[in-house]
Amino acid sequence: MTKIVNFKEKLATFDELWTPKVIAQMNEVQFKLVKIQGEFTWHSHQETDEVFMVIDGDMTIQFRNHTVELSSGELFVVPKGVEHKPFAKELCQVMIIEPSGVINTGESEGNLTAKNDVWI
Amino acid sequence: MTKIVNFKEKLATFDELWTPKVIAQMNEVQFKLVKIQGEFTWHSHQETDEVFMVIDGDMTIQFRNHTVELSSGELFVVPKGVEHKPFAKELCQVMIIEPSGVINTGESEGNLTAKNDVWI
Repeated sequence: MTKIVNFKEKLATFDELWTPKVIAQMNEVQFKLVKIQGEFTWHSHQETDEVFMVIDGDMTIQFRNHTVELSSGELFVVPKGVEHKPFAKELCQVMIIEPSGVINTGESEGNLTAKNDVWI
Repeated sequence: MTKIVNFKEKLATFDELWTPKVIAQMNEVQFKLVKIQGEFTWHSHQETDEVFMVIDGDMTIQFRNHTVELSSGELFVVPKGVEHKPFAKELCQVMIIEPSGVINTGESEGNLTAKNDVWI
């Protein structure tokens, strides 16, 4: 049987920024916690939509033609293939929901690319 | 482009119990809000895991051999095919995440079976 996942307890176990940690899996879909601050890189995921759910703090998702502002208790679906750039002025704690195997930087691998499938 | 989903705003739009409302979709996976109070029916979903995430309140998920207690900020994956019975002593607000097409009462259709794929 699976275990209860408490967001606060899981978030207390790491400090690294921009490194999604898997906390649960439903079929092939993974639930990942990530702490973000500052600017990420422009990227897209050609094979899947991606969900951002803010647990604590504020973040923006920049698109090529507009920007979305998200706060705690809000969720946003980035459609498959759409270029986006996450940003947070101050520390923001986020749950990302997407199929297993998705790389955080999508098609833009570089020094922000995190190890995939790291469970906490 | 998809829209920002604010849980509080969406939850303020309905009062019915045990009737999941779809608020977002990622690929084939739907995100549903539901208000629960009292006892649901024993059921299982033969074709999929199911995620419960408590937004506000407390709930239990009864299994045939144990019980899981969930509070706000906690998430639980009910594995595919496992019989379960949700319960909440007082009003509890929950997000359910599962593939589109899943019926709330699974293989136990009856008077608690809700209309599927209702978006708010």
